[in-house]
Amino acid sequence: MTTPARQMHLSVLALAAGNNIAAWRMEDAQAGSMNLPLLKHMVQTAERGKFDFFFIADTPHTAPNVHPSWVVRLEPLTLLSVLSAITTHIGLAATVSTTYTEPYNLARYMASLDHLSGGRAAWNVVGGAFPQAAANFGRLPHPAHGERYARAREFLDVTKGLWDSWEEGALVMDKATGKYIDAAKMHTLNHEGKHFSVKGPLNILRPPQGYPVIVQAGASDEGRDFAAATSEAIFCVVANIEEGKAFRDDIRARAKQHGRNPDHLKVLPGIFVIIGQTEAEARAKLAALGEIIEADTAMKVLTDYLGQDLSQHPLDAPVPDLPATEMMQGYAVALLEIAREKEMTLCELRDLVAATQGHVLFMGTPEQIADDLEEWFLAGAADGFQLMPHYFPAPFDEFVDLVVPILQERGLFRKDYTGTTLREHMGLPFPEHPAKKSA
Amino acid sequence: MTTPARQMHLSVLALAAGNNIAAWRMEDAQAGSMNLPLLKHMVQTAERGKFDFFFIADTPHTAPNVHPSWVVRLEPLTLLSVLSAITTHIGLAATVSTTYTEPYNLARYMASLDHLSGGRAAWNVVGGAFPQAAANFGRLPHPAHGERYARAREFLDVTKGLWDSWEEGALVMDKATGKYIDAAKMHTLNHEGKHFSVKGPLNILRPPQGYPVIVQAGASDEGRDFAAATSEAIFCVVANIEEGKAFRDDIRARAKQHGRNPDHLKVLPGIFVIIGQTEAEARAKLAALGEIIEADTAMKVLTDYLGQDLSQHPLDAPVPDLPATEMMQGYAVALLEIAREKEMTLCELRDLVAATQGHVLFMGTPEQIADDLEEWFLAGAADGFQLMPHYFPAPFDEFVDLVVPILQERGLFRKDYTGTTLREHMGLPFPEHPAKKSA
Repeated sequence: MTTPARQMHLSVLALAAGNNIAAWRMEDAQAGSMNLPLLKHMVQTAERGKFDFFFIADTPHTAPNVHPSWVVRLEPLTLLSVLSAITTHIGLAATVSTTYTEPYNLARYMASLDHLSGGRAAWNVVGGAFPQAAANFGRLPHPAHGERYARAREFLDVTKGLWDSWEEGALVMDKATGKYIDAAKMHTLNHEGKHFSVKGPLNILRPPQGYPVIVQAGASDEGRDFAAATSEAIFCVVANIEEGKAFRDDIRARAKQHGRNPDHLKVLPGIFVIIGQTEAEARAKLAALGEIIEADTAMKVLTDYLGQDLSQHPLDAPVPDLPATEMMQGYAVALLEIAREKEMTLCELRDLVAATQGHVLFMGTPEQIADDLEEWFLAGAADGFQLMPHYFPAPFDEFVDLVVPILQERGLFRKDYTGTTLREHMGLPFPEHPAKKSA
Repeated sequence: MTTPARQMHLSVLALAAGNNIAAWRMEDAQAGSMNLPLLKHMVQTAERGKFDFFFIADTPHTAPNVHPSWVVRLEPLTLLSVLSAITTHIGLAATVSTTYTEPYNLARYMASLDHLSGGRAAWNVVGGAFPQAAANFGRLPHPAHGERYARAREFLDVTKGLWDSWEEGALVMDKATGKYIDAAKMHTLNHEGKHFSVKGPLNILRPPQGYPVIVQAGASDEGRDFAAATSEAIFCVVANIEEGKAFRDDIRARAKQHGRNPDHLKVLPGIFVIIGQTEAEARAKLAALGEIIEADTAMKVLTDYLGQDLSQHPLDAPVPDLPATEMMQGYAVALLEIAREKEMTLCELRDLVAATQGHVLFMGTPEQIADDLEEWFLAGAADGFQLMPHYFPAPFDEFVDLVVPILQERGLFRKDYTGTTLREHMGLPFPEHPAKKSA
C-alpha cells in the first residue's frame, strides 16, 4: 500500500448574498442571506463537490450599506443545524465571537452541532473585530486588540475544558441496575481565570470529534501566534504565490515552536475565481462585475475595512501611510502591504477591495484555474483554498462542475469522502480525552 | 358559517430521557436525551397527533443523580433547528434563560428559528431558576428572585424591540437600481436600561410570526404577573380541577388588568397520563413505574425541587413548615400547598414528586382519559394541556394513537392543522410592527 499523496482541502465561504459587494445584482444571482432554499442548494453543491467544509462567517451586528452579506441573515448555528439534516458528510463551520458570548453557552452549541451532524462541526474563533458589535452588548468602549486575544485564549481553554466534561462511556444507562451515569467519568472544570469563572461540568457528552475543528483567520502577529498555537485551519488574505508561501512558512514555523506538527494546521488562502469557457469569456464576466460596483459603494467598503475616514486623501495618489487601528488589525495591515508592494493608488486599492477584498483572483478556463490551484498547492503556498464565490449559485456551481473534476483527475483532490467526520476529511488527529492521555 | 367551537391546545414536554425520574428503566423505554433518532420520532409523532407544539425545557447546567433528563442532552436551539427540517407544521418551543444569555444573541437565535421553521418558534422565558447554573457563568451569588424577574422583563422588552428592527418590505434587493435595503424601514433600538445597553438594529429580518410565541411557567405572585402581562401560553402545576380553575381564573383576571384579551393567554396544566386497555392494566402500569423508583432517588428529587435539606424531618409525619427559598420559588410553594391541603406525610409528598413532580395524574382507558381532559377543559380549568410522558416513545405514541382520535371525534381538538404558523394553531394575534400600528 502506498502512502496517499498530499491532497488539497476545499472550503466555501457561504455568504449567500455574495462575497462581492455588488454581484447580487447579476441577472442570475439569487440574492439574499435569508434565502433558505438557496443555502440548501449551496451546501448540497459543496457536498456534491466533496468539499471539506461549508463556512458561514458572522458578526453580531448589522452593517447596512457596507456589504449586502452583513445586513440581515439567518443566524449561523441554527442555520448549520438545519443544513446538517439535509447533508451527510460535509463539514459545517461557523464564526462565533469570544467577546460577545459565554463559554458555557458556546461550548454547548458547538458540541450539540457536532453531535447533531455526526462529527462535522468547526468553529472559527474570532475575538469580535467589529467595534459596531460592542454597542449591541453594552460593551463600549470596544475592548482593545490585545485584550480581545487574551480573552479569546482563555475562552478557548475553558471551552475545551468543558468539552472534556465527560469521558467516553460516561453515559451508562443500565436499566437493570438503575445506573444512569458513571460519575467517575464526569469531570468538573472549576475554572477560575482572569476573564471567566466557570464551574462545569457541561451538560452534553463530549463531541464526536473530541473537539470540533478549530479554525481562525488571524493575520496580525498576535493573531498568527494564536492560530499557530491552537487552530487546525487558518484562512488568510494573500495576493500571490510568494505571499502565500511566506505566510504558510511562517505559520508552520510558529506551529513547530508551539510543539505542534505543522501538518495539523491547514493554510487556506481565500480566493476569488472567475471561470469562462475561454479566457475572453472570463474577462467579460469580470468586466460585467466591475460595471455594477459603484465607486462610492466601493469606497465605503474600503473605509470600513481600514476603519478610518479616507476622504481627505487624493484618489489618484499612492495609498498614504495610515495609522494602525483597532479594527481588523491584521487584515488591514495585509491590505496596506499589498498596496505598497504593488505601488497602488488609493483608487486602485478601492477597486481591488471592492472586487475581492484583497484576496487573489484566479481567472480563466477551468484548466487554467486548476493549473493555478495546483501551482500554489505544490509550491507550498497553500494546503487548500477557501473559495469565495462572487455570488450564488452559478459561479459556485460552475467551480464544482468544471474545476473540481480536473483536480480529482490530477489526484489533487478526493473523488469521494473516505471518512465521516470533518477531522477525517482534513487529516486532523482526534484529541484524546485528557484522562485517557494521562492514563 | 358558524363560529368554530373553542378547542383545546396540546403540547408535549419532550424530555427524551423521560419526565419521570426512573421510567427510562422500563423495558420499552429508549433512554437518552442525546438520542436524535428518538427525538425525531417524538416530534413526528407529535405532528401526526396535530399537537400545537413540541417543547424542550432547559437549564444551562448538569444535575447528575437528580433527574436523567438534566444530565447530558442535545442543546435545544440547535436541536429544534434540526427538527424544523423534518416537520412542516408543529410549533417548536425551547426554554432559554434571560439570566445567562444576551438579548442580542437570543433575539437572533429565536428569530432565526422562526424563519427556518416558517413561523413555528416559541420561547419559554425563564429567569434561570437553578442556582447551580450561576456557577457556570461566573455569576455567583445567584441573583435574587425579584432581581431575576426585573432582568427578565427588561430582557423581553429589548428582545421585542430588536425583533422590530426591520419593517416588512425593508429588504428590497432591487437589482436594477442597486438598492439592497430600504433604510427608512430600518429601526435602531438605542436601548439604555438598568440591566442592558443594546443599540441594534438586529441583523435578521422580523420573524414570520412578528414575535415568536412567548411562553412562561411562573407560579409565584411575581411570576404570574409577569406571565399575565407578557406571555401567550403558561404552563402550571395543579393537582385537581378546582386548583386548575382557580389558577386559570387568576391568570385571566391578571391579564385583563394588564389590558389584554385573556383568550390570548392559554393556560396549559402539566399532566401525567397512564393509558391501559382497561383500568386494571393502567393501574398495573403505575405499579410497575413505582417499583423502579428507589426511595433515596425520590428523596433527592424532592430535596432538589424544594431547595433544602430534608433529612432532619421524619418521613411518616406531616410535611413540615419549610422556609421559602430562592429556588423555583413558585413551584416549591405550589408543591407545599398541595401537601398541606391533602395532609400528606413527607413520604407521600416524596412519592408524588417522584412520580409526577406534583402534576396531576390521569389514569385509565383512553375514553376515561378523554373524559378527564374534556371535564377540565369545559370547566375552565385549562385551555389545553402540557403532556408529560413518563418515558418515550410508547406512552406518547399511545396518547396520540388512542386518546387524540377521541378528542377529535368529540370536536375538542383539531383533526388537521388549518394554518401554518404556531400563532395560527393557537389562535394568537399577529403582533403588528409598531411603525404600522402608529401609522
